[in-house]
Amino acid sequence: MPGNTFGTLFRITTFGESHGAAIGVVIDGCPAGLKADIDFIQSELDKRKPGLSTITTQRKEEDKVEILSGLFDGVTTGAPIAALIFNKDARSKDYESLKDVFRPSHADYAYQQKYGIRDYRGGGRSSARETAARVIAGAMAKQLLNTAGVEIYAFTDAIGKIKMNRDATQKELNNRFSNEVRCPDETTAALMKQEIEKAKAEGDTLGGIVCCIVRNCPSGLGQPVFDKLQADLAKAIMSIPSVHGFEYGSGFEGITRKGSENNDEFFTDEKGNVRTRTNHSGGIQGGISNGMEINFRAAFKPVSSILKPQQTINQKGEIAEVKIEGRHDPCVIPRAVIVVEAMTAIVLADHWLRMRTDKLY
Amino acid sequence: MPGNTFGTLFRITTFGESHGAAIGVVIDGCPAGLKADIDFIQSELDKRKPGLSTITTQRKEEDKVEILSGLFDGVTTGAPIAALIFNKDARSKDYESLKDVFRPSHADYAYQQKYGIRDYRGGGRSSARETAARVIAGAMAKQLLNTAGVEIYAFTDAIGKIKMNRDATQKELNNRFSNEVRCPDETTAALMKQEIEKAKAEGDTLGGIVCCIVRNCPSGLGQPVFDKLQADLAKAIMSIPSVHGFEYGSGFEGITRKGSENNDEFFTDEKGNVRTRTNHSGGIQGGISNGMEINFRAAFKPVSSILKPQQTINQKGEIAEVKIEGRHDPCVIPRAVIVVEAMTAIVLADHWLRMRTDKLY
Amino acid sequence: MPGNTFGTLFRITTFGESHGAAIGVVIDGCPAGLKADIDFIQSELDKRKPGLSTITTQRKEEDKVEILSGLFDGVTTGAPIAALIFNKDARSKDYESLKDVFRPSHADYAYQQKYGIRDYRGGGRSSARETAARVIAGAMAKQLLNTAGVEIYAFTDAIGKIKMNRDATQKELNNRFSNEVRCPDETTAALMKQEIEKAKAEGDTLGGIVCCIVRNCPSGLGQPVFDKLQADLAKAIMSIPSVHGFEYGSGFEGITRKGSENNDEFFTDEKGNVRTRTNHSGGIQGGISNGMEINFRAAFKPVSSILKPQQTINQKGEIAEVKIEGRHDPCVIPRAVIVVEAMTAIVLADHWLRMRTDKLY
Amino acid sequence: MPGNTFGTLFRITTFGESHGAAIGVVIDGCPAGLKADIDFIQSELDKRKPGLSTITTQRKEEDKVEILSGLFDGVTTGAPIAALIFNKDARSKDYESLKDVFRPSHADYAYQQKYGIRDYRGGGRSSARETAARVIAGAMAKQLLNTAGVEIYAFTDAIGKIKMNRDATQKELNNRFSNEVRCPDETTAALMKQEIEKAKAEGDTLGGIVCCIVRNCPSGLGQPVFDKLQADLAKAIMSIPSVHGFEYGSGFEGITRKGSENNDEFFTDEKGNVRTRTNHSGGIQGGISNGMEINFRAAFKPVSSILKPQQTINQKGEIAEVKIEGRHDPCVIPRAVIVVEAMTAIVLADHWLRMRTDKLY
Repeated sequence: MPGNTFGTLFRITTFGESHGAAIGVVIDGCPAGLKADIDFIQSELDKRKPGLSTITTQRKEEDKVEILSGLFDGVTTGAPIAALIFNKDARSKDYESLKDVFRPSHADYAYQQKYGIRDYRGGGRSSARETAARVIAGAMAKQLLNTAGVEIYAFTDAIGKIKMNRDATQKELNNRFSNEVRCPDETTAALMKQEIEKAKAEGDTLGGIVCCIVRNCPSGLGQPVFDKLQADLAKAIMSIPSVHGFEYGSGFEGITRKGSENNDEFFTDEKGNVRTRTNHSGGIQGGISNGMEINFRAAFKPVSSILKPQQTINQKGEIAEVKIEGRHDPCVIPRAVIVVEAMTAIVLADHWLRMRTDKLY
Repeated sequence: MPGNTFGTLFRITTFGESHGAAIGVVIDGCPAGLKADIDFIQSELDKRKPGLSTITTQRKEEDKVEILSGLFDGVTTGAPIAALIFNKDARSKDYESLKDVFRPSHADYAYQQKYGIRDYRGGGRSSARETAARVIAGAMAKQLLNTAGVEIYAFTDAIGKIKMNRDATQKELNNRFSNEVRCPDETTAALMKQEIEKAKAEGDTLGGIVCCIVRNCPSGLGQPVFDKLQADLAKAIMSIPSVHGFEYGSGFEGITRKGSENNDEFFTDEKGNVRTRTNHSGGIQGGISNGMEINFRAAFKPVSSILKPQQTINQKGEIAEVKIEGRHDPCVIPRAVIVVEAMTAIVLADHWLRMRTDKLY
Repeated sequence: MPGNTFGTLFRITTFGESHGAAIGVVIDGCPAGLKADIDFIQSELDKRKPGLSTITTQRKEEDKVEILSGLFDGVTTGAPIAALIFNKDARSKDYESLKDVFRPSHADYAYQQKYGIRDYRGGGRSSARETAARVIAGAMAKQLLNTAGVEIYAFTDAIGKIKMNRDATQKELNNRFSNEVRCPDETTAALMKQEIEKAKAEGDTLGGIVCCIVRNCPSGLGQPVFDKLQADLAKAIMSIPSVHGFEYGSGFEGITRKGSENNDEFFTDEKGNVRTRTNHSGGIQGGISNGMEINFRAAFKPVSSILKPQQTINQKGEIAEVKIEGRHDPCVIPRAVIVVEAMTAIVLADHWLRMRTDKLY
Repeated sequence: MPGNTFGTLFRITTFGESHGAAIGVVIDGCPAGLKADIDFIQSELDKRKPGLSTITTQRKEEDKVEILSGLFDGVTTGAPIAALIFNKDARSKDYESLKDVFRPSHADYAYQQKYGIRDYRGGGRSSARETAARVIAGAMAKQLLNTAGVEIYAFTDAIGKIKMNRDATQKELNNRFSNEVRCPDETTAALMKQEIEKAKAEGDTLGGIVCCIVRNCPSGLGQPVFDKLQADLAKAIMSIPSVHGFEYGSGFEGITRKGSENNDEFFTDEKGNVRTRTNHSGGIQGGISNGMEINFRAAFKPVSSILKPQQTINQKGEIAEVKIEGRHDPCVIPRAVIVVEAMTAIVLADHWLRMRTDKLY
């Protein structure tokens, strides 16, 4: 059953396995007339590229994007945009020892049950390497949204028990990729890095929270009932490997407030713009953006690929010990930040196009 | 742009406004040969019916379901099942005073911006009354899942600051609808009821958490990449009015654990079934159910319709005071529990059918 | 598996059986702000209403449309529009004798094989009565297209061996529903009527051709590759019961022309409009409307419900004779003309909305 | 707006332009466990490869398929299968002279109107070269259908005025690709070849008819109402460039028969199989396959790229003469036969999978 396509009007289909020939994406529905900046796409990919720092996997992939179709003289034509990244540093032999055992908290067992076959090399299709394809699509979505002035900022809000306990300034947001952990607060970032290095030294891993805010988003994005903006964002974000939670606006914390404390009063600002005094709605009301800042948070579990030996079973159901080799991230958050931005951009681009058919005109 | 359809193989389309002639649903894709128990559908609807207790809205709706198609001698034929509930106790005049103002934290403003027109009577399409249609569809989905033994239990886990701090027993789960707040712990339920009554007396409202667990779910549900089971569940639950957060398995809390603490080790139990010793995965790995208990939690904000006067603006952008009349729930959780179950059932039924095309056979 | 939904942005879902409680449709995606003329919808339905003349079935159905949702003060709000027709003159007992036999060239056998159960009363879901729901949706689509000036004219081009061998004038097109057979040429119409009456007297039935032309259609409708305008029109028309062929522009006849004879040369007319000297392209090039008149033809087989006794088998596979009772059309064409228009309008409305996201602006 | 995806459960997305880097396809939904024969895919591609004979275009493309994903040890894993053909012999300079004029009966003008930009090199996305990607997908669909014994035979039934006036034998069907025109009757094939050579010599082109029959198709494929098997086949076939007509079973010819002549009587054959004495239904009743042979015909217009000078307009709307250079087919039918088979296989594979959710079991 197909499950590799996302979006309705800005629609992406990804393909490829971690240790296959290539991973890639087809973007169908990008409007004609958009000047595509390939360098920008590459710079986005570079933000999730492995091997960039001591706290990420040491797999060396250049992750160079190749655009195969959909552009003419650098401009979109309305035709599908296919893009590829060839895999270069796959070391499948690292996985030979894993072909008969199910790694704890990985997709191995579930895939085997579902399909009766699995590509065990690097996790195959279940590898987070697939998200590179999403970043390509996200980079196109961002360029589309740029024409409307929409700005998307994701950043690391927590790593394990280390949390950034304040809002970021606009300048900090602009520089969010300037440190290795992608936390806008440099002091917190340093602490987070230490924490990751410590876990790595122990052969262990950490989780955390990515926060995302969207500025200058027009009102009207999202559809009533099932395709509410928060519902589509939740699906997009929850489809990223390791994400176990999503909340927007008042989120989980807001449940202890009373309605009179939580409601966002409307007013008209000095420029004549309708705004709300608080923003517990997170920029979305009735499933539809209201022009205020959209904000949400995603909880990532600690990476399942730990280097410590673990108990598990093999394909026959017998007890087995597994010791994961291969090159892995001790914490996925720093590289996931750009993936969160990409999925956010894809959802917003889709709904920005969907909005065009709302009214008679 | 269409947004009123949910699901791929078990697909529902809802329609109708709070104060229109009727609300309803078309279920397309329910397999032929299922004996449909209409009394069961009605009993599910009765669990979200307004006016049942002192802590819910006093609108009196019988919410009687009428099945128009898709059954022959009480059995599904494969044809679409259309079901209706006629609205009987709409008091649209209660809303006359609201037609020119935007209620804080409601859909009013966003709808107006999006469509240039809105049905202000009872919130029109944005009303949670729409969820009655989902309950009908959920009741059919449950009957379908029953043939595979799948059991779904949602219940109230928190109301405002009152929280049930333990797991429910199977017996408590079976009796989860026996008290008005739908909390399996009777003592906590009593406290919750008091809390709601207190808020109601103040003209205020409360939020809370609904927890849902699924037992006896086969492995293999969910699809890799975008249509992961947790992603589709998140979308389904986040599309319910007032939900601001979704988490499954280790959720937000789990981010402070290390990988070695969070991983779920596999073993084979005495019956030969593969199980995990812990279940931080929440029954889902790589986006696919692994046969363990599925569990998730949904955060509901406090109801926006408070009876206290509030500052807002009118359609001209001028400051206005709004005092909401009408009949409203001081807390939506007790009636939302069955809606969470319905959406869960719809997602699982869909993926249970999708699973049929995974393998060659 | 769902199969009762058609369209992507202007999307309809129909439901209901011939002898069930009601038939109906949900239209999702009709833009907000369209003034809906219910009388017009009813007048469209009246064009396919049974019992109108001596050459149609004598089943008496008022076919009165009831709109349940999606309108506010008579204007579309962007919410789904649900519409119903209650069945009033179903005589299910006429079908008792047919419950164990498979009528030749009907859906009986195929449905039984597919579903293991079938609603034999009046053909259940396979009845052409379902097309009344399409006419309702088509009437809304026409009103939407009216805002762009698009004009749709279907008419009877052939009944059995009687054919209208010339183009219709604009005046004749405007009056196409003025005679019972819906043929713009009154002389031919009279011959056709005789032919139908003759077949009816023999307990036999006739087929024919419906031609459809679309005037004032903007260029740009249709999508490259799979969703070409002719492909979506073909699917729409071929989904109408009894249709066995579809051709547009040069069609089947054109295969004997050479490229140099068949190509349509462009020129700019005195008003500065780009036109072609011939129109073998039928108004569609590369899958996309080019602004010229769109034209196509649909072949309808003779009605399968003949009153003569026929050989067949029963559910046990034994030879049986079947004699169809009930009330049936000796020729479906006169009532199918409006259905062809409806499906055409639905396809064009869908592509007219889809066109809005083609370009950056 | 996306339009490059076809199918619901066996779903393909194609991409690439005639003179771009590559063309390709992503197949999503092919069940796991299918042994993929890459040589077979290549042999299918070879049947539409350009430059094979004197009566096809002289463009030299090896059309070598590369599979990038979805297979593990040569077996499908349930992951999307991406396949590429790199373009090697594109001579874009042949098209320089065409960049400002609209070739008659091509997509040039319609694309320009729709998108405001077009890739004029070889027709860009509108080129029939895109169908090579469909052939790859069709080859996978055929392998899937092989597991159920389904056999698909398309062949050339007419070229211009030369028509094969009889049914083909099974042996002739098996050898349908043994001559250059793909007509099972060798004598007719020779005449057709002469006709094509004659047209080619004149710088002119021909159209024709491709007939397709499907043997051993199970009953139950197709869905009631909109996704009738004939409707999805019609869409699939009408989406192939140059196709202007589609008919199945009794088709256009059948409209002159009476119901009593056209109805197919059921009987049980000596093996206990339910069959019909005639097959005017073309193997499909009520939109669903009935187990009889499925048959349909597609009308192809003469190729629009003629070498004779033609009148047209340029992008400014001024009269211009166009003389098409480049390498073109004088008749598309011989290479289109395998494309018709591919699209047929894709539709049948899709419905064969869809059938799995029809019934409770």
